[in-house]
Amino acid sequence: MQNQVQPFRAIEISGLARRLATEGRSVLHMEFGQPSMGPPRKVLDVARAAIDNDRMGYWESPALKERLAALYADRYGVAIDPSRFLLTCGASPALVLALSICFPAGARIAMARPGYVAYRNTVRALNMVPVELPCGAESRFQLTAEALDAIEPAPDGVIIASPANPTGTIIGGDELRAIAAVCRRRGIRILSDEIYHALSYGEPCRSMTEYDPDAVIISSFSKYYCMPGWRLGWLLVPPDLIERAWSYLGCLFLTPPTLSQHAALAALDCAEELDANVAVYAGNRARLLEALPQMGLRRIAPPDGAFYIYADIGHLTDDSMGFCRKLLLDTGVATGPGIDHDPVDGHRFFRLSFAISAEEVEQALQRLGGWLPR
Amino acid sequence: MQNQVQPFRAIEISGLARRLATEGRSVLHMEFGQPSMGPPRKVLDVARAAIDNDRMGYWESPALKERLAALYADRYGVAIDPSRFLLTCGASPALVLALSICFPAGARIAMARPGYVAYRNTVRALNMVPVELPCGAESRFQLTAEALDAIEPAPDGVIIASPANPTGTIIGGDELRAIAAVCRRRGIRILSDEIYHALSYGEPCRSMTEYDPDAVIISSFSKYYCMPGWRLGWLLVPPDLIERAWSYLGCLFLTPPTLSQHAALAALDCAEELDANVAVYAGNRARLLEALPQMGLRRIAPPDGAFYIYADIGHLTDDSMGFCRKLLLDTGVATGPGIDHDPVDGHRFFRLSFAISAEEVEQALQRLGGWLPR
Repeated sequence: MQNQVQPFRAIEISGLARRLATEGRSVLHMEFGQPSMGPPRKVLDVARAAIDNDRMGYWESPALKERLAALYADRYGVAIDPSRFLLTCGASPALVLALSICFPAGARIAMARPGYVAYRNTVRALNMVPVELPCGAESRFQLTAEALDAIEPAPDGVIIASPANPTGTIIGGDELRAIAAVCRRRGIRILSDEIYHALSYGEPCRSMTEYDPDAVIISSFSKYYCMPGWRLGWLLVPPDLIERAWSYLGCLFLTPPTLSQHAALAALDCAEELDANVAVYAGNRARLLEALPQMGLRRIAPPDGAFYIYADIGHLTDDSMGFCRKLLLDTGVATGPGIDHDPVDGHRFFRLSFAISAEEVEQALQRLGGWLPR
Repeated sequence: MQNQVQPFRAIEISGLARRLATEGRSVLHMEFGQPSMGPPRKVLDVARAAIDNDRMGYWESPALKERLAALYADRYGVAIDPSRFLLTCGASPALVLALSICFPAGARIAMARPGYVAYRNTVRALNMVPVELPCGAESRFQLTAEALDAIEPAPDGVIIASPANPTGTIIGGDELRAIAAVCRRRGIRILSDEIYHALSYGEPCRSMTEYDPDAVIISSFSKYYCMPGWRLGWLLVPPDLIERAWSYLGCLFLTPPTLSQHAALAALDCAEELDANVAVYAGNRARLLEALPQMGLRRIAPPDGAFYIYADIGHLTDDSMGFCRKLLLDTGVATGPGIDHDPVDGHRFFRLSFAISAEEVEQALQRLGGWLPR
């Protein structure tokens, strides 16, 4: 039978959290990478107008692709032809599409461990082989050019994630350039998941497309743009893959939601409101980094970006799923078990999403403080 | 490199049609299986309310699954546990999910030729092998139990489509039962694409789940419910596949659009308005079946359901794509080339969608009548 695909266990935690909420419990949702803020007001206005004025057929917005090209010019200083963007129902199908167009069955795809649960599972579901490289605190939980150079034989592809899930760590421009050089030399195709871009607390994020024009870039409106349930993502492909990507997109997925494309076009002009959210996350991050070590959670991956804390709980448990379940049942604080992100060492980590309000973070800290052993 | 995936050529026709419309040309869109009617008014009201009241996080509607179970009880007289439904961004990813959870790489999947373009291409994209069975007028362009019994060795799976795209032909209950029996005996897993259900012009459609509880059923809100751009479909899986399907869904796709789930729940209570659309299609179908033979298009597959005419144009061309392109450029009538549906014989067929208004059908007939050689 096929390669085994593991369940996404945070979904189980989320289901339990919703059940508790239905029973009247006060639940704080820190288990998913999902902003609790809704999208900007203008996005909602545009969506209402689209309901009135558009019949919502199958559609791909040319204006949205033009606007994405402008975003890449502004943000990264790169000129991208709008035809290189493909619009998808979120980043998840964009990853399926990227892997499908780039690699045959049996291809070996390198990735960091810990990493987003879907990387290794989607690679397996498509009958490819994940090559998970253990990345600990010494490499800031990230792949390096050196580590990629050392894999024998060279893998067919690599998934780069910066800012990363679950850690939030960012790979700087110099290291991205070095990774691009190693991959070019060794013939490794780069897929770069940039879904957390614009969510950084120090230097801005650099895109792999600045360093490797042959990289395939994955992104979406679910994180910085606060539109997870709108299901809209994009793939940026090199020119020689456009035709192939189009054929696959039409057959595997057709078009993304029409309404969401109208709304997303508006979202791209709402930087002020969206950056105010990032300021809230920055405050939450500082507060958590101050308070959690005082509760004994001292080994935390450096959260340069995204909105996660990935903390070592090895002194408390060797069963992160049991830990998260008990924490939720006892306190109403829903978190994600590290085992989703790392099948080897994840049993001693958990992940908190801080894309919530400052008030919710304070409540979560109070509950955690009372629950964690001193 | 991977198996070749062919482009969906109707998308190219549609792009040309939109370009002509931009230039001020009058275009009649009969190239896609897309209702020109929007969804019922109540669906739009519910969508507006959801924009006001829901933050649109990642979400799967339990109420929608309950309501789908009620639909299957009403329509087909079968009791389905709501947990057997998985919600997807349309039927296309539902097919990707169905194939992925049922079959390993290399599996042989039987299907009718002609058939929907995505069947053979998605099977190939997932590194499986399409086994295309030529189905002509003698079998009403459909697979039969007899034909499935004759494939040696037995394929691993089969895709059943009733009503079919591009022909609209329906497989009756007795033949579905016979197909189920052959597949059970030979160990062939059935995937049944029922996206055109509730669109029939004689007997109502029967679901394969009535005859084979182990069949995986694919459907969506894009056709009868007139919600193509809302991107919402579902998969109905047998109980022993639920857990596996959940793991794949979470990793490959996450959730479908939140807004669309609210809207679809309302659509399921709008039978009166939706059946009025079907009455329009029935009128269009009768009109086309009367007029097209007078224009020399006499060999038409029996359009029992869906909203397509699949007509033989072998006396006019051996290049259906060129035919459709020239027809569009000359008259503004956009149609789909048979080569999408049948790589062998499709060069002498084209497909018209009649999910448009009666007035548009009259205009199309006028233009076609003036253009087709007498």
